[in-house]
Amino acid sequence: MTKPDLDQLRQQIDQTDTELVELIARRMQLAQQVGQLKSQAGQPLYVPEREAALLSRRRAQADSLGLAPAMVEDVLRRIMRESYLQQRQQGFDRTGPPDRRVVIMGSEGQFGQLLQHWFSISGYPVVGIDQHNQDELSAAVQGAILVLVAVPIEHTVAVISQLPDLPADCVLADVTSVKQEPLTAMLEAHSGPVLGLHPMFGPAVPTLAKQLVIVTPGREATAANWLLEQFALWGCRLTELSAPEHDKAMSMIQVMRHFSSFVYGYHLREENVELDTLLQLSSPIYRLELMMVGRLFAQNPRLYADIIYSDAAEHATMERYLERFREMLDLLQNEGKEGFVRQFEEVAQWFGDHSENFLAESTRLLAHAEDGKT
Amino acid sequence: MTKPDLDQLRQQIDQTDTELVELIARRMQLAQQVGQLKSQAGQPLYVPEREAALLSRRRAQADSLGLAPAMVEDVLRRIMRESYLQQRQQGFDRTGPPDRRVVIMGSEGQFGQLLQHWFSISGYPVVGIDQHNQDELSAAVQGAILVLVAVPIEHTVAVISQLPDLPADCVLADVTSVKQEPLTAMLEAHSGPVLGLHPMFGPAVPTLAKQLVIVTPGREATAANWLLEQFALWGCRLTELSAPEHDKAMSMIQVMRHFSSFVYGYHLREENVELDTLLQLSSPIYRLELMMVGRLFAQNPRLYADIIYSDAAEHATMERYLERFREMLDLLQNEGKEGFVRQFEEVAQWFGDHSENFLAESTRLLAHAEDGKT
Repeated sequence: MTKPDLDQLRQQIDQTDTELVELIARRMQLAQQVGQLKSQAGQPLYVPEREAALLSRRRAQADSLGLAPAMVEDVLRRIMRESYLQQRQQGFDRTGPPDRRVVIMGSEGQFGQLLQHWFSISGYPVVGIDQHNQDELSAAVQGAILVLVAVPIEHTVAVISQLPDLPADCVLADVTSVKQEPLTAMLEAHSGPVLGLHPMFGPAVPTLAKQLVIVTPGREATAANWLLEQFALWGCRLTELSAPEHDKAMSMIQVMRHFSSFVYGYHLREENVELDTLLQLSSPIYRLELMMVGRLFAQNPRLYADIIYSDAAEHATMERYLERFREMLDLLQNEGKEGFVRQFEEVAQWFGDHSENFLAESTRLLAHAEDGKT
Repeated sequence: MTKPDLDQLRQQIDQTDTELVELIARRMQLAQQVGQLKSQAGQPLYVPEREAALLSRRRAQADSLGLAPAMVEDVLRRIMRESYLQQRQQGFDRTGPPDRRVVIMGSEGQFGQLLQHWFSISGYPVVGIDQHNQDELSAAVQGAILVLVAVPIEHTVAVISQLPDLPADCVLADVTSVKQEPLTAMLEAHSGPVLGLHPMFGPAVPTLAKQLVIVTPGREATAANWLLEQFALWGCRLTELSAPEHDKAMSMIQVMRHFSSFVYGYHLREENVELDTLLQLSSPIYRLELMMVGRLFAQNPRLYADIIYSDAAEHATMERYLERFREMLDLLQNEGKEGFVRQFEEVAQWFGDHSENFLAESTRLLAHAEDGKT
């Protein structure tokens, strides 16, 4: 037994950890100063190439010291995330014209609040309009450079069609999770620049850095360039897509997944499973599966109702899904394992390289989940 | 514009990162020395209380320096994971009696290879038996202290019932993902110590530290204590459960989830969605949903066929799931949003605090997924 040696080593680890935390604090301070300079100079916060180069140098150093490059990269990314987060506290440069107002429709909602925050810290005069101050709308849009509709999906079209006349160069945009209907309504309501936006993140994100925003063009794209530059300055990635393409992909992604998670939650309740036992027995992958279902029910049912009812065509897709479930259950019962394996292999072929990539990516992610395990 | 200042700051960040990587390398070396001492002293690699105390000190330090404690904890956990992983390279103490053999049935399979590795580096003489060397089995079990069955689930019972007589104090155990049938077969085949094990992780895990193993007791639990101590020394967490309880929970967790992921993959193929477009448009949460489905198809269909066919009772559960899907789709179409919201709220109530916890936990996990985003 080597008790004293073990104690000594533990003290040294403690000392190393103390220095490590001090070093992280120093790095955070430096990154904050960089952020401030960038903001003053109107440079984007997130520059993919620079980040990649920085990480590549550290991976090489790790390798030369016999460390796993992936571990060093994970550590640095985690620290950098915190720096992006810190950035939220400080201001950003304004890309839009000076002294022109931004009007947020639905300013009391979660997304309305988020947008109000970001435009405010970037130097825009912001007016929030919600149910309590509808009467201020007409005055608010005078001289506005942007009217941004962030009301619940079921009210979007009505709110747009009731807008007063906007200045000719004012951008009219929305952040609804469907795009065709709102875009049509906006093109009708306003003869100036029109733009559909779909932020692909929840309103609770701590930072906009690296977040995806889908842009569906409406009219006079050039006149709305300053707005896209503003999102880029905040660190967002922008992807352009036509409204019909967007809606087709989204209903496949959202409606179907939300609804089947909902049914699965309902199923678990009806089976009256012991959730605590299930969790106790869950390996990381099953825990994650349960989490993905259970997390739905911590959120606002009306939001999900709105999304699920946003596209009636998607209900036909769900009918088809149901038929396929029936079909596969019959296959299971009538054709035995061989039938299942054959069908599995066909689907695997269709997924192609994606399935291997998904496996690798989810395995890395699960390793992170494991880190937190006690 | 303050170009020189920005360059200066970037150089300082580079210097800090260099020191950070050096410090991590030093910590890894110290942890490796601790691991060697522990292994020599027969102490378990993973001690939850010590890890918690260490993290708690660093969280406090982070707090005092104005850093987010969660970030510092994430960084340390990531480094510690790498230390556990490193541990795999070095040997472990043996808790079992000296010079007694371990026989692995199904030694060519992925789990068989994993078990062979761990018993070997812990100083056991290991004999692997698979199809090519069945004729060596009778000799191999002479003087064995453990016969561990790690063959595919469909062969488990047959392999057990064909075992030759084992030494009276030899432990007979299996690692099948169902427990009742194999346990019954083992109790019949051997009159000495019997134990069911279910490792709740895939054969590709880099380390056994913190991995869950479910233990279903069979006979003469005390005589198998050395085996459980060996798993604990490797860092595993052990949970005891009766075989029927285990099977009920597992079929709910595994059969149902695998099958519905399978059907969902089939559905995506039949709808012929553009996977690349879907991925491009996916926010982190949808990307994760797609990953959870797609990863299935990178794996062995026979494994899933075996699991899905392991419990015929579970097919009735799937029939019930299908009925509930139908029921909810009707509710959607006939009762509108209000019906959906009412049903949603009932399920949310059933999930209780779990849903909030799931949301928080998955949000943390998704933040890690974001770290890797470029």
